[in-house]
Amino acid sequence: MPSLLSGTVNLKFVPQDGGRLTRQIYDRLRSAILSGALPQGYRLPSSRVLAQDFQVSRNTVSSVIDQLAVEGYVAVARGRRPVVAALEKVRLISADASGHQDSGPVRISRWARQVSRSDRHFTNEGRPQPFAPGLADAREFPHEVWARCLRRAAGSRHRSRAIGANHPALRAALLSHLVEHRGVKADARRLIITSSAQAAIELISRVILNAGDLAWIESPGYGGARVALEATGARVRGITLDRSGLRLAGRADRPRLIFCTPSHQYPTGRLMPIKRRQELLAFAAEAGAAIIEDDYDSEFHFDGRPVVALQGLDTSGNVFYVGTFSKSMLPDIRVGYAIVPDRFVDTFERAQRHTGQMVTGATQGALAEFIGDGDFATHIRRMTRIYRGRRDRLATALASAAGDRLAITPPAGGMQLLARLEPGSDDGPLVADLASVGITARPLSRHFTGKATEHGLFLGFAAWNDAEIDAGADLIGKTLAKIAAGGEARAKTRSLP
Amino acid sequence: MPSLLSGTVNLKFVPQDGGRLTRQIYDRLRSAILSGALPQGYRLPSSRVLAQDFQVSRNTVSSVIDQLAVEGYVAVARGRRPVVAALEKVRLISADASGHQDSGPVRISRWARQVSRSDRHFTNEGRPQPFAPGLADAREFPHEVWARCLRRAAGSRHRSRAIGANHPALRAALLSHLVEHRGVKADARRLIITSSAQAAIELISRVILNAGDLAWIESPGYGGARVALEATGARVRGITLDRSGLRLAGRADRPRLIFCTPSHQYPTGRLMPIKRRQELLAFAAEAGAAIIEDDYDSEFHFDGRPVVALQGLDTSGNVFYVGTFSKSMLPDIRVGYAIVPDRFVDTFERAQRHTGQMVTGATQGALAEFIGDGDFATHIRRMTRIYRGRRDRLATALASAAGDRLAITPPAGGMQLLARLEPGSDDGPLVADLASVGITARPLSRHFTGKATEHGLFLGFAAWNDAEIDAGADLIGKTLAKIAAGGEARAKTRSLP
Repeated sequence: MPSLLSGTVNLKFVPQDGGRLTRQIYDRLRSAILSGALPQGYRLPSSRVLAQDFQVSRNTVSSVIDQLAVEGYVAVARGRRPVVAALEKVRLISADASGHQDSGPVRISRWARQVSRSDRHFTNEGRPQPFAPGLADAREFPHEVWARCLRRAAGSRHRSRAIGANHPALRAALLSHLVEHRGVKADARRLIITSSAQAAIELISRVILNAGDLAWIESPGYGGARVALEATGARVRGITLDRSGLRLAGRADRPRLIFCTPSHQYPTGRLMPIKRRQELLAFAAEAGAAIIEDDYDSEFHFDGRPVVALQGLDTSGNVFYVGTFSKSMLPDIRVGYAIVPDRFVDTFERAQRHTGQMVTGATQGALAEFIGDGDFATHIRRMTRIYRGRRDRLATALASAAGDRLAITPPAGGMQLLARLEPGSDDGPLVADLASVGITARPLSRHFTGKATEHGLFLGFAAWNDAEIDAGADLIGKTLAKIAAGGEARAKTRSLP
Repeated sequence: MPSLLSGTVNLKFVPQDGGRLTRQIYDRLRSAILSGALPQGYRLPSSRVLAQDFQVSRNTVSSVIDQLAVEGYVAVARGRRPVVAALEKVRLISADASGHQDSGPVRISRWARQVSRSDRHFTNEGRPQPFAPGLADAREFPHEVWARCLRRAAGSRHRSRAIGANHPALRAALLSHLVEHRGVKADARRLIITSSAQAAIELISRVILNAGDLAWIESPGYGGARVALEATGARVRGITLDRSGLRLAGRADRPRLIFCTPSHQYPTGRLMPIKRRQELLAFAAEAGAAIIEDDYDSEFHFDGRPVVALQGLDTSGNVFYVGTFSKSMLPDIRVGYAIVPDRFVDTFERAQRHTGQMVTGATQGALAEFIGDGDFATHIRRMTRIYRGRRDRLATALASAAGDRLAITPPAGGMQLLARLEPGSDDGPLVADLASVGITARPLSRHFTGKATEHGLFLGFAAWNDAEIDAGADLIGKTLAKIAAGGEARAKTRSLP
């Protein structure tokens, strides 16, 4: 009877720290079978011999053989030694290889190609730098209060049942906040909890749009929404803005969905006045269009009081209201929400389950407490004060550093401001130059769907303290001056005889 | 100059607790304008008069008027009293109405209709009762340990940056666990964190499948996967099982995606042996098909050791491995994951961002610690012991209560067992009768895609203690006996002359 150790098959067994003996012997025999070192039909030594070879007990060997038999590597029969099964040889993968070849013929779907093509920026990942927009200042967040809420929500030994996709306590607390501060009209069951505003926009788009449908988006507008609309296969049309927002006059086309930011237009910061809101609601009701109202950062309002949400005016059930905690609390809290019209509640709850999109129970419970105890309102009041100061600081610093090269209308609220360039300027090279000196600025021109008619810098001021704001504004001023000097030099060169 | 209080317009102001004065006056004036009580062109009283009427300061009135002007409710001109703007009358919504009419013409998409049609069960919401499958026992979970992990992850004042969709520390800890316990081969960046296994399956389906594509699913198989595949518009074909799992022999069709549960077939509990695994991998490589390997509850293995994942054998990069923490930890933890082939990593990271599907940062950090500190492995070892006992208890109790009416092969692992009914039985009425006495059982027949060839009860044993198991099994036995007696009575009635 051949010993596995003494033959050409090198199965020399070296026990390794941290691995259990059975596992190591199993791995060794399995690899030898898969590689063909122990060929088809080979009859393994008896368990007594194997136990001697491996210097382990016969019980250990028997449990390994049983396992190999269950998985089909060897065939066993009473009173006979196990025989290696007929298997394909497998090119054994070395420990550091990642187990793939890039030549595989699996192809991605049209949806995946659409999503992959998009080059939209994502502002709240990695190490952000001034003036990434849409970013809350995590340094000012009451982490300890929040951590205690989480701990309490997770620690209860009585939580023996799951709380579901939409925690009743969170729905109630959030609704009461939104009714009080945003003027929405709804009952709690219409609140759908998502992992972000983006997830809410994406889910609504999928629920409403078929491929080929027409969807409208403000132009300039929010790129994340454009991607979500386009990913459904819809035809996405950019709608020009006038001073009141979405320009409806003279439009003969009839969209199935309209995306807008009426309280604080993204990125221009404009407010849609009541008359246009009424026109928009009447238009949507007549066209049978759904409206997504993205109320992304209206918690922070500096001058006057926040404008009541469009949703609160809707009587036709066409408006889907979307909000998020990632601006008002922390970027990585990953909780957003939608208020959907009553007749859509069941569809959305099914869509949540079928797409598996649900927020951790502990986070939902902690949020319910954080809002219910007043910590959320306190935090918003505090950050509103801080952000108002930063808005003013950035506006002043830019005026001083860049002078007439930037036209700024400080926004009445929110977390970012728009600094327009003179007509004829190109924000693309400027943004690239700024990136090379550590400044993030989003080019206004890239927010257009269709032709860009304005250029400028979209700058987040919320996450940066005074020193960071001053230093950043200074760099913007210097970069603008350098580009202007280059332009003049080029102009001079061109005018040489 | 008319007083608003004395005219026909009843604006009588009653200050209310908890509301701020400006807000209340604003709401009052705004409602009166929207309702038409203050008609277009109506010139408001001076701020002095309004201040007297409302018994507030002129500053308060001025800030309200400013706000109404900003939002376009009134027009103001220097030195003149504000004039009500030309607006549509709005049917004012009473406080308790939900602001919608069900007659709205907004329609849902084909996708939403598809999702709404599905009547798949969701086992882990609401108050579950024995023997809901797929449910972990939250009563045995170390809530306090987990709560401390969450608290530490959330409480750090230094976490001033977001950790992203896929936390590097969680990726590393989870990969090391999966390599050790499941035999996967990957590097950490191929781990995609999702909010559930369902979300991972849904995302993979969308990335691979176009409408009209062919997809395979085991029949009987996992209903959640079927819904996810169908929602892409793919043609979903149920593939019959033999003793080794998916029967490949003689199939001429070529799917683009194959969904399977090789380590512990759902719902039959069968293990796919190595030979069939090799055949499946070779078939997929040749057909250019992606494979989703759903390794949903393989952490719990009772007899022998857990079978190595199919993913660890794949050398073509066709296998997408899916797992979840909702079985191994808590139903409402809401964290799942996928290991995707290397060349798909970028596509999945974009898909995560564009669909906004990201797991709360604190939960990801806490999980990294829970796994890294060994608490996860400890919990799994403990629950494996407990669940093994419950499997045996349920099998024994059913054998005693139902005798030959149920055929049970206790599964080698997992959280549920399949009790088959005799050929010719119908599990539908039985399941309905059981529901009426407080017992949840999933009918085996409903797990088939296409024709159901077997009937039985799919029963979760993990979440129930011995007393609950005994009582539940007893109810099943009695219900079976009652149905049998009814059947005999009917048979007798039929055989009467």
